[in-house]
Amino acid sequence: MNTAKGTTSQRPNIPNELLPDLPHGPLSEYRRRASFNWKEMVFFLDDEELIQFKKEIFSALENDPLFHRHPGQDLSMEKYRELTFRRCKRIFEYNFLTLQQTLEKPQKVLALINCLGMYDWSLGAKYFLNTQVFSGAVGNAGSERHSQFLNQVQTMEIFGCFALTELSHGSNTKAVRTTATFDASTKGFILNSPDFEAAKFWVGNMGKTATHAVVYAQLYTSDGKCHGLHSFVVQIRDPQTLLPMPGVMVGDIGKKLGQNGLDNGFAMFHNVRIPQENLLNRTGEITSSGTYTSAYKDPKQRLGASLGTLSSGRVSIMSMAVVNLKLAISIAIRFSATRRQFGPTEDEEIPVLEYQLQQWRLIPYLAAAYALDYFSKTFFMNLVELQIGIFMKDKSQRQAELGKEIHALSCAGKPLASWTAQHGAQECREACGGHGYLAMNRLGDIRSDNDPNCTYEGDNNVLLQQTSNYLLSLVHLVHEDKAHIESPLGSINFLIDFKDILGHKFTASSVEECLDPKVSLAAYKWLVCYLLRESYLKLQQEKKNRNNDFNARNNCQVYYCRSLALAFIEHAVLERFHDYTHDFSTPSSLQPVLKKLCALYGLWSLSKHLTVLYQGGYCLGQLPARIVQDAILELCAQLKDEAVALVDVIAPPDFILNSPIAKADGELYKNLWSAVLQGEKVLERASWWEEFCSNKPVIGPLKSQL
Amino acid sequence: MNTAKGTTSQRPNIPNELLPDLPHGPLSEYRRRASFNWKEMVFFLDDEELIQFKKEIFSALENDPLFHRHPGQDLSMEKYRELTFRRCKRIFEYNFLTLQQTLEKPQKVLALINCLGMYDWSLGAKYFLNTQVFSGAVGNAGSERHSQFLNQVQTMEIFGCFALTELSHGSNTKAVRTTATFDASTKGFILNSPDFEAAKFWVGNMGKTATHAVVYAQLYTSDGKCHGLHSFVVQIRDPQTLLPMPGVMVGDIGKKLGQNGLDNGFAMFHNVRIPQENLLNRTGEITSSGTYTSAYKDPKQRLGASLGTLSSGRVSIMSMAVVNLKLAISIAIRFSATRRQFGPTEDEEIPVLEYQLQQWRLIPYLAAAYALDYFSKTFFMNLVELQIGIFMKDKSQRQAELGKEIHALSCAGKPLASWTAQHGAQECREACGGHGYLAMNRLGDIRSDNDPNCTYEGDNNVLLQQTSNYLLSLVHLVHEDKAHIESPLGSINFLIDFKDILGHKFTASSVEECLDPKVSLAAYKWLVCYLLRESYLKLQQEKKNRNNDFNARNNCQVYYCRSLALAFIEHAVLERFHDYTHDFSTPSSLQPVLKKLCALYGLWSLSKHLTVLYQGGYCLGQLPARIVQDAILELCAQLKDEAVALVDVIAPPDFILNSPIAKADGELYKNLWSAVLQGEKVLERASWWEEFCSNKPVIGPLKSQL
Repeated sequence: MNTAKGTTSQRPNIPNELLPDLPHGPLSEYRRRASFNWKEMVFFLDDEELIQFKKEIFSALENDPLFHRHPGQDLSMEKYRELTFRRCKRIFEYNFLTLQQTLEKPQKVLALINCLGMYDWSLGAKYFLNTQVFSGAVGNAGSERHSQFLNQVQTMEIFGCFALTELSHGSNTKAVRTTATFDASTKGFILNSPDFEAAKFWVGNMGKTATHAVVYAQLYTSDGKCHGLHSFVVQIRDPQTLLPMPGVMVGDIGKKLGQNGLDNGFAMFHNVRIPQENLLNRTGEITSSGTYTSAYKDPKQRLGASLGTLSSGRVSIMSMAVVNLKLAISIAIRFSATRRQFGPTEDEEIPVLEYQLQQWRLIPYLAAAYALDYFSKTFFMNLVELQIGIFMKDKSQRQAELGKEIHALSCAGKPLASWTAQHGAQECREACGGHGYLAMNRLGDIRSDNDPNCTYEGDNNVLLQQTSNYLLSLVHLVHEDKAHIESPLGSINFLIDFKDILGHKFTASSVEECLDPKVSLAAYKWLVCYLLRESYLKLQQEKKNRNNDFNARNNCQVYYCRSLALAFIEHAVLERFHDYTHDFSTPSSLQPVLKKLCALYGLWSLSKHLTVLYQGGYCLGQLPARIVQDAILELCAQLKDEAVALVDVIAPPDFILNSPIAKADGELYKNLWSAVLQGEKVLERASWWEEFCSNKPVIGPLKSQL
Repeated sequence: MNTAKGTTSQRPNIPNELLPDLPHGPLSEYRRRASFNWKEMVFFLDDEELIQFKKEIFSALENDPLFHRHPGQDLSMEKYRELTFRRCKRIFEYNFLTLQQTLEKPQKVLALINCLGMYDWSLGAKYFLNTQVFSGAVGNAGSERHSQFLNQVQTMEIFGCFALTELSHGSNTKAVRTTATFDASTKGFILNSPDFEAAKFWVGNMGKTATHAVVYAQLYTSDGKCHGLHSFVVQIRDPQTLLPMPGVMVGDIGKKLGQNGLDNGFAMFHNVRIPQENLLNRTGEITSSGTYTSAYKDPKQRLGASLGTLSSGRVSIMSMAVVNLKLAISIAIRFSATRRQFGPTEDEEIPVLEYQLQQWRLIPYLAAAYALDYFSKTFFMNLVELQIGIFMKDKSQRQAELGKEIHALSCAGKPLASWTAQHGAQECREACGGHGYLAMNRLGDIRSDNDPNCTYEGDNNVLLQQTSNYLLSLVHLVHEDKAHIESPLGSINFLIDFKDILGHKFTASSVEECLDPKVSLAAYKWLVCYLLRESYLKLQQEKKNRNNDFNARNNCQVYYCRSLALAFIEHAVLERFHDYTHDFSTPSSLQPVLKKLCALYGLWSLSKHLTVLYQGGYCLGQLPARIVQDAILELCAQLKDEAVALVDVIAPPDFILNSPIAKADGELYKNLWSAVLQGEKVLERASWWEEFCSNKPVIGPLKSQL
């Protein structure tokens, strides 16, 4: 194993230009201790073409003055939005990815968005919402006649946004109130917002930039009949002037907790006329005679199809959240490996990474970053498969089931990834102490930019219900003796042994046994089966006791359906990572560390469900919890010497990571100090100094006026 | 019970000017459903003098144009710091609190800081660090000869800061490296920072404002001998010009995640001379002959005494965190009571507060706000008692034990309160969906401003070790049969039954039984005893296995000492709140709702320890977890109709709360919409519009350069 150690590549085919050696310094000692070669790991996790592609993007940004970093700069929101727009335009000029290249390697789309996001999520989101979400909505819900919009977006003749949410409606999309009424006389639609509560709200790019919006509205035919939610391309600003179109009141919703380079906006429509062709007509169409037709008879199915874009959005968000987790943990681990505090003797202070407590706070998130990264990458390819099927008009049962399974996995995967990143960012912030609270070290931006991942494309808690509903719909199958339970991606296949599994117990009897991820995999299988049964029984009981299904379902969420959905997705993530890390084709030089990461992710995730394992009788007595906990600590201890190298694998270049406490050279204080001194007017007297020096307060004169 | 219902006061002695009726609107329905009169609750929780005092402060701010709010304003950091300084000066002019009034009612100090913090923590912190922390450090560690500094602070002739932390040392304060060397020839000290890693760093008010700092430095006598850490008053800027003093390099550390109206700074000293008298001489003194003397023979004790200021800081931070929790939960509950989404039928949408999931996410934090508020208020009075004892030079054993107990409680109380507020703020942010992510609704500021509470005056995780050390020091007592275990505040008294308690089991057998907080109190007593025993055994074992105590102690933190400290403080908080809410003097009209809050806080906190309860055999089988969980949901359901009124009790006036989605009139959308439209340039075209309209990007030209 030791042959592959150290920072010098043992693989002759990894050119140093592609993956340069990291600078020597305070981190070298930890790097030396790693059991594996970090470059080999990079090449195992990604293929060379993608590594090359990312490097190309990173280098372009680093070498372009428009993307320069200014430590301590205090940018106004308006300037930040301008800068983000200019950068977005520059990305068009770089044209990193042609349509042809996208088709050849769809992963590059995700890689591009993520690279931009690693640099700055405002830029990543602005570019993504225009080129992917707007275009995706037009492409998926529209038809040939809408291709002009796609072409115009590519050349930035127009700029797009996606307008679904309204001021008073988010989760309940079905209830949005904007109307689009067909006017037979002019062969067009007239858009109206009944009142300001129905203003489109929160729409990214709408605040200042977008000229066109995909607008969701209730479609009315001229006979006054409502045909439900449909999407329309609406021009909201004049591309020649960026002034609003007649009848459109459009503006900026203001400052957010993060992503302030992105202009989120609102719009109200007052008799805004659009051509009939602007209806995105995949789910419904108006004939020349003015009547409504649809391939979807069931309005619920039609709504589902109309909102299909959101599913791919969720898959992308998973990977965005993983990016944030990688950034945060890279910062915290490098900091912890160089920050020294206390020690066994008066004179010797040790890196805080040496403390069990610090290891336990951080290393599980490092494991989570690896496990979730692998899941989100492979899951994206599952989505590509689904979309190819849609494109090819695949009507097979497999395609339908793939759609359902991906929906179920994405509705829990987005919550899992975004929450893990959110909690991880907070833990990393705290683990870096005061320096983690300094804005330039970036943990605040990571936390704030990740935060909306918990909310958009479906509130996490609301989304989880989609997953539990999918699982509950399988209950009748698991009770049939010869049931055929099999899904295209296999995430539910283990349910075929439902009854057997429910009879299983926790059998590991030592810490050593628990180091094998099979222990958590088995426990998760039991957990999902148990929670599925309990959720089902609870739902039946509630249906009996309550007047209606609505209340019954609502009263089954906490401790039942919600836990079920989370356990299910955690199992799916763990299982994929397990199969990957234990595959015979995984290099033996990398397997030991990858298996440890897998085991740690499994036990750490599982440990949050220990109460249920006891409650349901899977665990009994002191031993199970104790050995699970001891195994977590043991894995943390084993991985602390791998942690720096594991971070080297996932951290972007210093320029992109942009955190003085986390540069690859490990010179924590030098880098921080120099960044602080580069700030604006750092050593200058405050401009308002006379307010202190003259004009002394007269104590108390205002009090009598109270 | 119903006699005290509604919004009109039944108590003739509550003048409407002091506590005005709340406006009618969408929240009225929930208010009507409350079982109690909110004004009666206000008067029960606070006395009239404090209510009057807070109202005076709030009214002064609201009526003073300097404190006006500007929705959507995008203030630069420099402007924000200027504004915060001006506001701070204005607070001096109001002189809300004289020294005499402080002595008569010490709670007013806390009330003043908290009122300012509710308005804006940058202001609260700036004022607090100057008038309390700097002055406190001088007052507690100094003597008569330093009273000039205290007087000068009161009139703002000077402005103070507290400089302990250095760039490379925070938690390990003992290792700070700034030196103060006595120079016998000039009868003064010479201060030096050996290098930039020893620069004072993170010091609030030091960035731009402070003229004087309490600086912690290693005291060297002229014979070159080091006498350990001492504090000194060092003039760092000239009050006439705000320019740095010779030899002082002082500057601003830059933008933070929050509290950016406060200027945190750094300072390096190069042969800076200060008079001998500036040594704060309570812990050590230089005689006229130049020799060092100290009342504390043990250097460790001396260090403890020297850092005594931090203990009172922690008690204040607890109450600051509670303020943040109150603000966040007020916003989220009012939002949830007026935001409607989905419903049992197509046409009817219900407030999201009606959903079990939303109740479970929020209402426990409301209960926590009540329980922690009561604890922090009474604990502050315990601290006052301790400080009076110090002032009176009380050398009794009780005084010494009170000091230890308060140290132990504050070292766990600060973590508990700050984490509860931090997690609560995040949950509230998410529970308000997108609107929670809009900056003007304030949940981001609350989260960011609360965040440093987890770090300063001791990192939460590091601090908890102080508490577990205190408890571990009692172990020898619990094993003595006739041991006398009693502490001044009674928080450890139950340990006298240590052995008995360890034999107890969870005995409740129904949800109804669990509604009584006695169930969680009993479980917590067992939990503390169990974790104490396990931590002790683990420590003994580690000491045997490891080379040294340092490693042994570090390896006992996770799952042992850390959990012990948290369980101990949760028990203390719960027990106090239980005794308060169940006291015969508590009005019968308020008892029912208060008891529910108490029961909910107990069970919800306890539910995070259920694994340990099972692991240690206190719980067995499905029933205990199930009825605990069902009782939590039942209490949430019972409290959802009280929640709005409970928030009316703790929420400050609209102007102070400053969140459009949470005004007392409940007009969620009207208020939000109007605040959005009041923003700067909301409807204006971006200044950089030509960047889009002309100058179209040429796609791809830059690529060839890569």
